[in-house]
Amino acid sequence: MAETVRIIGIDPGLRRCGWGIIESNGNRLSFIACGTITPPVEGLLADRLVALHRGIAAVLDEYAPEEAAVEETFVSAGARSALQLGQARGVVLMTPALRGLPVGEYAANLVKKSVVGTGHAEKAQIQVMIKILLPAATFKGADAADALAIAVCHAHHRAIRKLSVPA
Amino acid sequence: MAETVRIIGIDPGLRRCGWGIIESNGNRLSFIACGTITPPVEGLLADRLVALHRGIAAVLDEYAPEEAAVEETFVSAGARSALQLGQARGVVLMTPALRGLPVGEYAANLVKKSVVGTGHAEKAQIQVMIKILLPAATFKGADAADALAIAVCHAHHRAIRKLSVPA
Repeated sequence: MAETVRIIGIDPGLRRCGWGIIESNGNRLSFIACGTITPPVEGLLADRLVALHRGIAAVLDEYAPEEAAVEETFVSAGARSALQLGQARGVVLMTPALRGLPVGEYAANLVKKSVVGTGHAEKAQIQVMIKILLPAATFKGADAADALAIAVCHAHHRAIRKLSVPA
Repeated sequence: MAETVRIIGIDPGLRRCGWGIIESNGNRLSFIACGTITPPVEGLLADRLVALHRGIAAVLDEYAPEEAAVEETFVSAGARSALQLGQARGVVLMTPALRGLPVGEYAANLVKKSVVGTGHAEKAQIQVMIKILLPAATFKGADAADALAIAVCHAHHRAIRKLSVPA
């Protein structure tokens, strides 16, 4: 019998950071919760990053996931916006790891492929597929849906890794 | 009589993160300590960021600075390296702010100007000037000297800000 593991997927961002929690048991997935953290858009950058950290920490406290997954950021944008996204991403990666959770990173096109079947899916397609894969999921907007997609991607890949290592 | 304030300057980096602690009393500066945090270069990025966070937290525990200053990163490099530096920088900004320290950010050329008198100083000039401004300072390498320069810049600018606000 397969073990149940609770996974948090996080879509990093300083203004809007999506998170989604699922349980995975063998090939069965269940929706637990999702949401979006919105740190204040004004004030010192350091304090906005603290709000992001505390927002994620509160979700970890409430739902106690055992593993975390974060999307690898696609850096097509300019260096300035990459730096800004990186700052949020550093906090997002560190916060679950600080509690001892393993934190997987997955490329954006791998996340899309895991959920929609192709690496070039639109945001709307991801939301439709998340509703099919996790019928109980209710989410407002793309950030939480993307975070659930990251969690689903992690669930698939951890299962594949387990299969490829003889017990 | 001017109050004494203890300041930490931090030069962010995931492989080498310099830190320097000074005390400022009016126009007098004193060297307290400096060093370089070197998180492991291998392993999960999230765990390396945790090592960076814990390294800074240990310095804050030991020296109890009251204010922090971090250099604003110059993003001339490509988006990929800006993202990577951003990840370290997010953790560096957040860690002192999590304890309630105000965290100032200063442009690199302002830091150089505060210490050397020009915004286009070489690394070696900064080290020479830091030895003059803080005769007791001993440092190995540029990271810790840069961090001390950031702390000196903050000391100057906080003094100017205080002068411009009537008590």
